[in-house]
Amino acid sequence: MNPVALIERKRDGGELSQSEYAAFISGYLDGEQVQEGQMAALLMAGVIQGFSVQEAKALTEVLLDSGDRLDLAQLRGPTVDKHSTGGVGDGTTLVVAPLLAAAGLQVVKLSGRGLGHTGGTLDKLESIPGMQVQLPLDRITEIAEEVGCVVAAQTADLVPADKALYALRDVTGTVPSMALIASSVMSKKLASGAGTIVLDVKAGDGAFMETAAAARELAELCVSIGAGAGRNTRAIVSDMSTPLGVGIGNGLEVAEVVETLAAPPEGRFAEVCLKLASLAASQAEGISEREAHDRLVSLWTDGSALETLQLMIQAQGGDPAVCQRPREVLPSAPVQVRVTAARTGTIARIPARAVGLLSMQLGAGRVQSTDDVDPAVGIDLQTGEGASVEQGQVLAVVHARTDADAEAVVARLGDLIEIGDDGEPAPTVLHVI
Amino acid sequence: MNPVALIERKRDGGELSQSEYAAFISGYLDGEQVQEGQMAALLMAGVIQGFSVQEAKALTEVLLDSGDRLDLAQLRGPTVDKHSTGGVGDGTTLVVAPLLAAAGLQVVKLSGRGLGHTGGTLDKLESIPGMQVQLPLDRITEIAEEVGCVVAAQTADLVPADKALYALRDVTGTVPSMALIASSVMSKKLASGAGTIVLDVKAGDGAFMETAAAARELAELCVSIGAGAGRNTRAIVSDMSTPLGVGIGNGLEVAEVVETLAAPPEGRFAEVCLKLASLAASQAEGISEREAHDRLVSLWTDGSALETLQLMIQAQGGDPAVCQRPREVLPSAPVQVRVTAARTGTIARIPARAVGLLSMQLGAGRVQSTDDVDPAVGIDLQTGEGASVEQGQVLAVVHARTDADAEAVVARLGDLIEIGDDGEPAPTVLHVI
Repeated sequence: MNPVALIERKRDGGELSQSEYAAFISGYLDGEQVQEGQMAALLMAGVIQGFSVQEAKALTEVLLDSGDRLDLAQLRGPTVDKHSTGGVGDGTTLVVAPLLAAAGLQVVKLSGRGLGHTGGTLDKLESIPGMQVQLPLDRITEIAEEVGCVVAAQTADLVPADKALYALRDVTGTVPSMALIASSVMSKKLASGAGTIVLDVKAGDGAFMETAAAARELAELCVSIGAGAGRNTRAIVSDMSTPLGVGIGNGLEVAEVVETLAAPPEGRFAEVCLKLASLAASQAEGISEREAHDRLVSLWTDGSALETLQLMIQAQGGDPAVCQRPREVLPSAPVQVRVTAARTGTIARIPARAVGLLSMQLGAGRVQSTDDVDPAVGIDLQTGEGASVEQGQVLAVVHARTDADAEAVVARLGDLIEIGDDGEPAPTVLHVI
Repeated sequence: MNPVALIERKRDGGELSQSEYAAFISGYLDGEQVQEGQMAALLMAGVIQGFSVQEAKALTEVLLDSGDRLDLAQLRGPTVDKHSTGGVGDGTTLVVAPLLAAAGLQVVKLSGRGLGHTGGTLDKLESIPGMQVQLPLDRITEIAEEVGCVVAAQTADLVPADKALYALRDVTGTVPSMALIASSVMSKKLASGAGTIVLDVKAGDGAFMETAAAARELAELCVSIGAGAGRNTRAIVSDMSTPLGVGIGNGLEVAEVVETLAAPPEGRFAEVCLKLASLAASQAEGISEREAHDRLVSLWTDGSALETLQLMIQAQGGDPAVCQRPREVLPSAPVQVRVTAARTGTIARIPARAVGLLSMQLGAGRVQSTDDVDPAVGIDLQTGEGASVEQGQVLAVVHARTDADAEAVVARLGDLIEIGDDGEPAPTVLHVI
């Protein structure tokens, strides 16, 4: 392997084979044959010149081969995994996983933590008193077998190359590449072992992909990689121009999940959850999406999904009472201040990214990956785009640690929520792949 | 300074300012703010997206500011410097420097060593018994003042950033960029302090720039940088599709230099030397190129240039007798084998690069920069493109350390020198800028 020759080929717009990527990346990880500057130069050449679909598949396999794989064959199955590219007010995993488990599928979901304006599933779960997300592999599969679903932290042994490459990409301006993003996502999904994978690729100002076209391209590439690796893979592109749910903050989002599963599926958040779950169940069981949808609606409405969530929380050490009295069991913030409508009209805009950043500012999210998060703080929206509001009506409640924190956010949030003479409900599912 | 933001701007086709390059590159050299992968990513982004002329000038200034500058203001002047981008059988410096010195100009030329198929001026000079090229700065200026010309090794204190950046570029596929090459060349020329700079940019298979168009682009960029920095800068693009001179090897090239200066200026090698010297003298003294040319021809023909070369060699500790009896004074190889013409005809092709590589294989050049070179070995051509030859006529003499070395090269050289039914003399000066 001649690292310079491989870099030069990529620089000049050529393609590298899977074995060439394998040699180059392992040469970098070993710290022997490939030095940091060479890895960065290859990444930058690929980001600018582009990677082919074949190269994206090759990179996925190389990352996958760098670590362990979860063996879910021992489960009765079918097994399902779900991934979101990250957004604001997006607790879909905590609805989709128990809903599918209630339908007899098995969901092993390894999740991450939040950074910047986007939340992380592990942080949300940890707002539940006693909840454990760091679980050994045998306990993960045991819970999946007993309850049907489990949501835990990714282990360091899964796809270690992805972590090392991402750390370099993060500081070298080489994050934004469809192929690098897709191979990072899909290598982790393939390593997690599920037979069916559903992806929720977010589009909008609160998402990594700002346009629906870019999100669709990423979704199609991920589906192509998953299918090429022999997994049932489907994806949706869903809107992230405005928060998906009304809770934005760790405990607030768990409360919304419980309240959503306790009522019939209605509204934007429920619609995205049901679409993802229907696609997954239809793929995993070889039934029509309509049949899957109807079965899931009845499992939702009859309380089976919420019951399964409760069993999962209990199995992971969390207080199961959260599923009956979420607002009592979850930690609450000492200061709660209402944001009210300055005029009568229609909600024209609630921007996802800005609202996510305000929640982060309250302490719900991280500026740096080493920051702690506060489970109690955040923003509870009481309205959404397209809704009619009267002057003085409560638009949101800000949950803060201090009066000063609340005050800073209340004023800004009041400006962010635009009230006009007309407005439309935010879209939900933009594409299905 | 935010390194990632600067990398991203360059990645997306934007430009960086001189102060941004200064901060980024010094952050890399300090090993503090900018890590190796970030430097490599920025270089790769620039190589693919291109650097503007303004950025090339900015990079030159940043490299220049990284080290010391030679102060030639103490010399009576005018001062001249000369640079070649490197070729095969190219001893122009050893003709141009004494020729200009004989005309009353002062030439301080800091040179390098050879690598691969291209020779280095220092290696050539060191084939002269006793010759010193590692000289302290005060001795360099002293010789320039006394003799009018001096050719020595570049000191480590001049443009240290260029050396560090080149080492990274060399392993990261980021060498081929007009702006990076031009800033590397010109920062060294500007640091060397001469008021007039002449550049010989080679084009052809034996040169770094294979096409005349690419060589011209580089030459124009270098001239623009030099002029922008307030120096009289001129350039030629000269042919390097076939060796410039007939000697290819360190001592053999010195012998050719002496023999060329001992006769009236005729032939391809002399033509390029005279063109470079005429441009330099005309610029430095504000006279017409024709007037400069005629004066230089007379200083060449009357022996003044050779006499000046002899003084320079003597001042640098070399045996001055090399200028009377070069083939006796210079080391000779134990094995000398002739290559003869297999047929009668005209020389159609003598490829520069391949012949340079054969000379390297004999021991005249370096595969790696740490290799030693042999002053005695090489190839002495007895013909050139366009010349008529008879079957059995000597085309070249191979100077080797062993019979086996000679044998390997003789057969290959015989194949490389193409004899056809017609052929034209190789071109010399392709462009003047």
